[in-house]
Amino acid sequence: MPDDAPALRALLSATGGADPGGEARDLLASPAFARLVGALEADHDRFVEQLIALTQIPSPPFGEAARAAAYAGLLREQGLEQVETDAEGNVTALRPGTDAAAGVIVLCSHLDTVFPAGTDVTVRREGTILRAPGVGDDTRGLAVLLAMARALDAAGIRTRAGLLLLASVGEEGAGDLRGVKHFFRANRWRHQVAGFIAMDGIDPARLVHGAVGSKRYRITFRGPGGHSFGAFGLVNPAFALARAADDLGRIRVPPHPKTTFSIGRIGGGTSINAIPEEMWMEVDLRSASAEALGELEARFLDIPPQAAADENAARDTARGGIRVEVKQIGDRPAGTTPRDSRIAGVAAAMISAQGYVLKHEASSTDSNIPISLGIPAVTLGTGGSGGREHSLEEWIDVERGASVKGVATALGTILTLAGIASN
Amino acid sequence: MPDDAPALRALLSATGGADPGGEARDLLASPAFARLVGALEADHDRFVEQLIALTQIPSPPFGEAARAAAYAGLLREQGLEQVETDAEGNVTALRPGTDAAAGVIVLCSHLDTVFPAGTDVTVRREGTILRAPGVGDDTRGLAVLLAMARALDAAGIRTRAGLLLLASVGEEGAGDLRGVKHFFRANRWRHQVAGFIAMDGIDPARLVHGAVGSKRYRITFRGPGGHSFGAFGLVNPAFALARAADDLGRIRVPPHPKTTFSIGRIGGGTSINAIPEEMWMEVDLRSASAEALGELEARFLDIPPQAAADENAARDTARGGIRVEVKQIGDRPAGTTPRDSRIAGVAAAMISAQGYVLKHEASSTDSNIPISLGIPAVTLGTGGSGGREHSLEEWIDVERGASVKGVATALGTILTLAGIASN
Repeated sequence: MPDDAPALRALLSATGGADPGGEARDLLASPAFARLVGALEADHDRFVEQLIALTQIPSPPFGEAARAAAYAGLLREQGLEQVETDAEGNVTALRPGTDAAAGVIVLCSHLDTVFPAGTDVTVRREGTILRAPGVGDDTRGLAVLLAMARALDAAGIRTRAGLLLLASVGEEGAGDLRGVKHFFRANRWRHQVAGFIAMDGIDPARLVHGAVGSKRYRITFRGPGGHSFGAFGLVNPAFALARAADDLGRIRVPPHPKTTFSIGRIGGGTSINAIPEEMWMEVDLRSASAEALGELEARFLDIPPQAAADENAARDTARGGIRVEVKQIGDRPAGTTPRDSRIAGVAAAMISAQGYVLKHEASSTDSNIPISLGIPAVTLGTGGSGGREHSLEEWIDVERGASVKGVATALGTILTLAGIASN
Repeated sequence: MPDDAPALRALLSATGGADPGGEARDLLASPAFARLVGALEADHDRFVEQLIALTQIPSPPFGEAARAAAYAGLLREQGLEQVETDAEGNVTALRPGTDAAAGVIVLCSHLDTVFPAGTDVTVRREGTILRAPGVGDDTRGLAVLLAMARALDAAGIRTRAGLLLLASVGEEGAGDLRGVKHFFRANRWRHQVAGFIAMDGIDPARLVHGAVGSKRYRITFRGPGGHSFGAFGLVNPAFALARAADDLGRIRVPPHPKTTFSIGRIGGGTSINAIPEEMWMEVDLRSASAEALGELEARFLDIPPQAAADENAARDTARGGIRVEVKQIGDRPAGTTPRDSRIAGVAAAMISAQGYVLKHEASSTDSNIPISLGIPAVTLGTGGSGGREHSLEEWIDVERGASVKGVATALGTILTLAGIASN
């Protein structure tokens, strides 16, 4: 962690001492919060309009540039400062705080969707229901950040810490959190981060404080190949792969913290009457515990070389032995923001004070990276309701009351953490 | 075996008693054989012309009809009798014998090539070298049958048994010998068959008397699938497949008769972060011994259900267990025509008497089916030299001396087996 980390970072990480429930009730009862809710309600139609427009700009994996450019334009129009696109494609914009030493709270939504280029992203509206691929995950989050900034302006509220809006690239799948990884590795704001709040997922009752980490590998076994009858006896990559997969299946993992393994895909070979030259499998290892994930990974990585050695011992290597390639294709670090840290405690208290039935959860989101770096981070729902994320049938309900209440809940957490500057 | 099998069939199967070496030397020294060789030499340019024309009619797997029709036309033009195409697509034509009770000797070459529709089958000629996919395997065999019939006519030779020319479909790969299987199941000639000679492969020194059988299976494991993290603990078809493949790899097979197993292809799964719903593998079991192949097959077929049961015992089946589908996708029966049977003894003696270094071999050809039915059968080379079968670089050398000598050698065997009718 850099030496110039803002003092607020330590405060947001600290456990015990405060009364977040009381803070939440006080804020919710304040005139400032009432002004905020009023502003969000008055702004709702514009929010929905922007959400539809952003959804209809395709933003496939590794193809977020058009949406990023449009989003940067909206940030500038709205008067946010220092709007920039970094080398990875992330867009950042500042709503300055009153206390430069407090640093910034990052508010992050991701630009990318899981849908490939060419997917029809036209929004179909039926009453308050919007249907389109990506409309909820995470385009609603992008529109919410804009709406939050407008509501703060309309309500005349300034925060002590700055709010740094971050529209990240590469959150989904093979993107492997490349946007937020770059942000914390190279973005000029990285040393000013006091806390990190990802706005991702719909459900406002959901508090993601556990970062499910994953290690993903593509394991390829290669051998000389040959005719299935004529060259019988030579090493066969299919048997090496089978041995490795079977050994993986026998690993015992702890039930708590939940730690998992899976083989998602297997492939290889060209013909039934040829010993294959190549066989591969894709393996997904996950845990919310960095330690448990590291142990599982270490045990797994012993397996492929042993399986290759076993096959080379069992059959003929005169034409060449089995070689194994272990390629990491995904790396999302695990970790936990403690439930009793200030950042998680404030978020939990605000969710409960609003009357939602709080759910503490672990998931894989942009927050994985700051959590793994020891930076206080949680992921909050963007409000309203919705479903079928990652499918072409994705939908959200933007009914004003539920939508605004969800946004206001997250905004209450943000204001409490950043601090409201007295006028 | 049907009751009306010709008496000659038993004779060709019988072992001991005769002196095939003496018979071969006598035939090769006879004026009749000299006339045959002269006729083949005089006809050589026409043979090459027909071979090129036939090669350039594409005949992909399951798409032999155009070549079959052209071949039937050539048989008719040449005066062969009862030219017919059966329900499977095989073409048959008779050169009658003088003794109807002797039945027929089948002379079989296959119409199909391994090359898919759209492959460029233009023949490139460089001196006596012809290059084109399929030119040797088995188009040369088809042209040889026509050339043999013309040479017999030109030399004024009649045989006691009839010669039934059979251009078969589906010899290669997934064709699974469907043409010759149909011939012995349903063709009207099937009960008249005294012996069977497949003309396949180039090398005239090669005598295939062993039929390498194969049993081919596609094994599919299916399960409920689910999210790799969220649904962890559910049964995973990849682990069931791994167990089955690993168990197959541990089977011990006898070195003699050569008995083999291989996994040629594996596939399944849609995403690294999903437990797959399906995983499959393709397995090839082979042996020249029907008994050894049967034993290997029985041991193998025990494995997939056990692997599914093991996976269902190891993990959660609340959302459904692993189901296994065992689908046979290939069945070529094994067997052997004894070396000391008359059919194999005559062929061996003729090859040796011509000065070739005889090679007894086992392979998978159209002869597999008659051999498995107890009908005397061998596969002989079509003559000359060549290489790179089953590749786009396939070539043969049609230099007249070597080509004619090879054809005459096979024809000598055929005449000895069918018997030359005295004029």
